[in-house]
Amino acid sequence: MKRRILLSYAATATATTAALAACSPSNTTSTTAGALPNVRWKMATSWPTSLKTLYGAAQRVAQRVSEMTDGRFSIQVFAAGEIVPGLQVLDAVQQGTVECGHSASYYYIGKNPALAFGTAVPFGLNAQQQNAWLYHGGGLELIQKLYSDFNTIAFPSGNSGVQMGGWFKREVNNVSDLQGLKMRIPGLGGEVLSRLGVNVQVLPGGEIFLALDRGAIDAAEWVGPFDDEKLGLNKAAKFYYYPGWWEPGSTFDLQINLTAWNKLPKEYQEIVKAASIQANMECLAIYDTENPIALKRMIEGGTQLKAFSSEIMTAAQQQAFAIYEENASKDATFKTVYEQWKKFRETIYPWSAVSELAYGNFTMAPALQSITGKS
Amino acid sequence: MKRRILLSYAATATATTAALAACSPSNTTSTTAGALPNVRWKMATSWPTSLKTLYGAAQRVAQRVSEMTDGRFSIQVFAAGEIVPGLQVLDAVQQGTVECGHSASYYYIGKNPALAFGTAVPFGLNAQQQNAWLYHGGGLELIQKLYSDFNTIAFPSGNSGVQMGGWFKREVNNVSDLQGLKMRIPGLGGEVLSRLGVNVQVLPGGEIFLALDRGAIDAAEWVGPFDDEKLGLNKAAKFYYYPGWWEPGSTFDLQINLTAWNKLPKEYQEIVKAASIQANMECLAIYDTENPIALKRMIEGGTQLKAFSSEIMTAAQQQAFAIYEENASKDATFKTVYEQWKKFRETIYPWSAVSELAYGNFTMAPALQSITGKS
Repeated sequence: MKRRILLSYAATATATTAALAACSPSNTTSTTAGALPNVRWKMATSWPTSLKTLYGAAQRVAQRVSEMTDGRFSIQVFAAGEIVPGLQVLDAVQQGTVECGHSASYYYIGKNPALAFGTAVPFGLNAQQQNAWLYHGGGLELIQKLYSDFNTIAFPSGNSGVQMGGWFKREVNNVSDLQGLKMRIPGLGGEVLSRLGVNVQVLPGGEIFLALDRGAIDAAEWVGPFDDEKLGLNKAAKFYYYPGWWEPGSTFDLQINLTAWNKLPKEYQEIVKAASIQANMECLAIYDTENPIALKRMIEGGTQLKAFSSEIMTAAQQQAFAIYEENASKDATFKTVYEQWKKFRETIYPWSAVSELAYGNFTMAPALQSITGKS
Repeated sequence: MKRRILLSYAATATATTAALAACSPSNTTSTTAGALPNVRWKMATSWPTSLKTLYGAAQRVAQRVSEMTDGRFSIQVFAAGEIVPGLQVLDAVQQGTVECGHSASYYYIGKNPALAFGTAVPFGLNAQQQNAWLYHGGGLELIQKLYSDFNTIAFPSGNSGVQMGGWFKREVNNVSDLQGLKMRIPGLGGEVLSRLGVNVQVLPGGEIFLALDRGAIDAAEWVGPFDDEKLGLNKAAKFYYYPGWWEPGSTFDLQINLTAWNKLPKEYQEIVKAASIQANMECLAIYDTENPIALKRMIEGGTQLKAFSSEIMTAAQQQAFAIYEENASKDATFKTVYEQWKKFRETIYPWSAVSELAYGNFTMAPALQSITGKS
């Protein structure tokens, strides 16, 4: 279903590309003697402006690059649909329609399934672990190698943290409750739930509320409390499940056309890298600060927090790794990334348990109890 | 004891300062027409070069600033003791002996107790929460206000994650086992344990191994597996406790003399901020990647992992908050920072429990069991 959607976007994207190439003086570079050049870039994004967190991260990259170059290097940010549809950002970057984009690698698993690891996969790494993998565990090199096939270089520039498990109109206690459940959930999470009997639906963010409210679907996942509340999902369903095991720490990327990248002075390249890391750090800080406030407000408004049962989580984890193994057996590139990633995951998991988890279980577990009534 | 040590350093620091002022052409700024100026800074640090993680974070700031300015802005990094002793970095920055330093705010709680919150306090925020507080929760503004009394501005530029609880020659199962235990542990963690009967010792990193090995002390904490292994602590004691509840996510700071800061072109200021955030992110990535490898090696070599008992943790948490309340009642600045911080902590804790903790307990807890034999 994902592939069909991507194909249907392709025609629109090509038309937009042609129109834009005709009218836009893109990648303008002018040099004053002795000073750094003026550069003007366009950034397409996968986000509506209403998605303050992620559109905000894209804006933050542009703002920081401008601040670090006193405005000499400026990047104009466009919302999804303004230049190309939200799921065609990488195409626009590859073709040079725009010099850069802000998107997520897992929107492009139709081009290369291994791109999923650049964002998040079910039962994968949380934000802190993903950053460790990307910045010191060899992950970024692997992901950049995948992007290079699309004439693109990418840098992590946003993270959601562990997302929520989404909104359900009725409780789901075990795997049998999932049979025939119509749920909006894209990507690998959808593939896992499909194998457990869910009737998977793919809808853009803007259509979720109506579908859920009218009962066209029984359940839907989006991001987390802050973003979900903006879509009004708490008005359309009562039960809010956690954790979002299919997106335990989604990374969002700044994607840059390699030809444009190679034209940049080295200083500007280094500034872009630093701006991306800053957006990555701050995006998570914003989610972690705003999510608890939104969650509290929704619980006070009647939302019921529910934990996924161990039965559902266990079955989902088995299916997730079955999918990875199948993909690895069919696709050498997937196998390369998966095996390196899997080894990293197996190495860091016990450490996170000794450090973050042991500390959190003593200090934070009582706080969970105070809002859910359960430990 | 801490204050006495700081005082004993003061004489040395003053002498060094005078010597340096006489010989060093510091904060050299030269401008070529139309281009950004050349700037040369010195950075004192609290770290020996052998502390790859933290000395590495200081070096990383300098390296990134240089890369983003094509070497026009260069910062020379000095190990602890080369310009000033490791615990006198803020003094050197304040006096302008060096333009900047890499240190931790909690080394200077003798100057202002509230500086503890800039690094970490017992039962406080983990790394992800600390970053949320600093970058989006109002924390950095509060900490910078404290630093401004010392003619200094500071930016977070390193984090250890949840540290370990340290090395014990014999098991400590309950509070009565702590009575009279000679343990090397500085700062607020030491103050808490002192109230629980521990005979607190303060020793520099380089002296811990010998003291523990010879039995002059019964226990010692340093940082975590990667750093502790370098000191050889696993050869001096058998039991390795977790979690390090007194340092659940210590932040390390780039401290900058305000006069030097104000002389920088705006672009360079922005570049320094970005370099600091990058060092902050990467420092934690390095700890999270290297700690599990070191921990596994030490366990294979005979180290026994032990969790602090709930009895000890509960008693310690009570003492920690008793100390904060006492400080707040005596010190208006401490009260201001503490109350804002405490509210942030109470807000983010349930969210971390719903997201990171719920996810970690399903996915990572079995991994903990595999290396400790306990869940």
